[in-house]
Amino acid sequence: MRCLEKLKKKLKEENVGGLLITNETNVHYITNFTGSESVLLITPDSDYLFTDFRYVEQAQQDIPWIKIVEKKVSLIKTICGKIKRLKIKKLYIESLHLTFDQYDEITKNTSGIHIVPTKGIIEGYRKRKTRDELEKIQTAINIAEKAYYKIRKKILTGVSEKKLADFLEFEIRNQGGEKSSFEIICAAGPRASQPHARVTARTIDKKDAVLIDWGACFRFYNSDLTRISFVDKISTEFKTIYQIVLDAQRFAIDSVRPGRMAKEVDYAARNYIAKKGFSKCFGHGVGHGIGLEVHEGPTINKRSKEILEEDMVFTIEPGIYIPGVGGVRIEDMVLVNSGGCNVLSSVPKELKDIIL
Amino acid sequence: MRCLEKLKKKLKEENVGGLLITNETNVHYITNFTGSESVLLITPDSDYLFTDFRYVEQAQQDIPWIKIVEKKVSLIKTICGKIKRLKIKKLYIESLHLTFDQYDEITKNTSGIHIVPTKGIIEGYRKRKTRDELEKIQTAINIAEKAYYKIRKKILTGVSEKKLADFLEFEIRNQGGEKSSFEIICAAGPRASQPHARVTARTIDKKDAVLIDWGACFRFYNSDLTRISFVDKISTEFKTIYQIVLDAQRFAIDSVRPGRMAKEVDYAARNYIAKKGFSKCFGHGVGHGIGLEVHEGPTINKRSKEILEEDMVFTIEPGIYIPGVGGVRIEDMVLVNSGGCNVLSSVPKELKDIIL
Repeated sequence: MRCLEKLKKKLKEENVGGLLITNETNVHYITNFTGSESVLLITPDSDYLFTDFRYVEQAQQDIPWIKIVEKKVSLIKTICGKIKRLKIKKLYIESLHLTFDQYDEITKNTSGIHIVPTKGIIEGYRKRKTRDELEKIQTAINIAEKAYYKIRKKILTGVSEKKLADFLEFEIRNQGGEKSSFEIICAAGPRASQPHARVTARTIDKKDAVLIDWGACFRFYNSDLTRISFVDKISTEFKTIYQIVLDAQRFAIDSVRPGRMAKEVDYAARNYIAKKGFSKCFGHGVGHGIGLEVHEGPTINKRSKEILEEDMVFTIEPGIYIPGVGGVRIEDMVLVNSGGCNVLSSVPKELKDIIL
Repeated sequence: MRCLEKLKKKLKEENVGGLLITNETNVHYITNFTGSESVLLITPDSDYLFTDFRYVEQAQQDIPWIKIVEKKVSLIKTICGKIKRLKIKKLYIESLHLTFDQYDEITKNTSGIHIVPTKGIIEGYRKRKTRDELEKIQTAINIAEKAYYKIRKKILTGVSEKKLADFLEFEIRNQGGEKSSFEIICAAGPRASQPHARVTARTIDKKDAVLIDWGACFRFYNSDLTRISFVDKISTEFKTIYQIVLDAQRFAIDSVRPGRMAKEVDYAARNYIAKKGFSKCFGHGVGHGIGLEVHEGPTINKRSKEILEEDMVFTIEPGIYIPGVGGVRIEDMVLVNSGGCNVLSSVPKELKDIIL
């Protein structure tokens, strides 16, 4: 309930009648409600969850301390009715998650109220993880790693990208995960030059490097890891590239500490990759926060204005991508501690470990 | 390319400089682009896909006839730069899919252009399926059904909801599906009174009815079916409820024909359930369109203003839910034809078929 209390305090201090939360993940973060397609209205006094018939019983079980309002004609009209009855004069909305149409409908159905767009209030709280969240994240990582160890012996010539991904999905669930955190990326050979390649029926060839990017969802919390496997004979050139990415990742990990700019972590990896002549082959940010969403704050890229704080959890995942040849990405998850960071994931990644 | 041509014609006729498509599914529908987090700008002359480093190579492969623009600082700012260079004076936006923040950013970064909110233009086209789409949907149904037959013998006392759902997920992929169309619902006994129950570790008891709601995704197209299984001894009362839902579904299916109001199909099932005394136990609409999204147009509920047309595909899924006791829902997919509808799904559902 800590987040809810903070929000109520904020509303009182800023003399605002209500905060309308249309981001489902934020609704779950605040209330632990397990359904979807529902909207939360927080006011200094009471709180209301607007939902439909499908989730009424579920909501009554999950969050009996919040007033459940079943929608009548439309969710937004039901909400507007409540806003009027509560005589709310000033309403905060989440401008990153309210659609233009919802905004328009609220404006038309509530006359004379002052709608104030806000950005990322709850996402801001979500960046620093509580002990309970850290336990769930660590479990999500452990499940992902156990599943990967189970399928590693199946990374063989003749097996298709899709088959491998399907085995991994099954093992993630088998190890206690609810599901994959996202569609598993399994890209063999040249296909790995597409950072977010979709799996295909392509089978693994003995000269392939196989990139797997996967994660497990456990009680709504996620993990996200990437490893490369070399099936048989990999060129010396490709091994050199692998080592550059591995070293770049190490520099980035070593640079993490509270008080540091997030962009410095990005720079640590990017600068090294550039020095080795691959600046044009690393076009995405070095990492992203992770928790209830696979991609959340803090942003770790060269334009990030964020400052690292203790208890933040994010990925560190530099890469080198060469169209027509292939790609290397190595991704781990770290937790910022008082003096640096703990690397939370542990699948081996030295060159000697990844040759099957 | 038919949808793209229609849109270009519309823009010319309505003297509009561009249509900004921020709904990913609509981007895929128009272009077949397989990536995500990208925005399409259609103008009477040229078309542009705004994306980031991760999807540039993928986009170049998927849609070489569209100009690919890699974002610089922010996607919206890159788009605004293009809008200004093209001297667009009037811009259509998708008000159901543009966030308030995106709207605000476009307004600030393009001065003097007239932004016109539009609602559901492309979703309107998507309601009637092409032959190619119908083939994919039928394959998605066939995969789901084959997977269900494979796991049916595993619906046994002592097996948990989660285990069953995981087996089904694996079989959907095994039969050629990319993944489940949505998180599988597998609810045993009283848990089925929650229409969208999440799977738990609860094991099946010999007195349970087991509700499974599942679907397969095949080349981006979806299926969505629901069946009940009776494990052992089910009360006569519960069998009566099952038969009411089955009859209600048959009335709804029989009522489908082009030119009819969608709400009449809802009424056919709802009226029968109400006559049998269960009006308060059926709170959701009787169906929904399905295709690239599991829930899309047409809406089939008591307030729907839609008129059925040939080539529409939707679910018909009445239910009776009794908190503390359980729930019954039977769901099939139908295709509107010239004189009525074809039922596209075929898993047996007579009382005699569902007793294991």
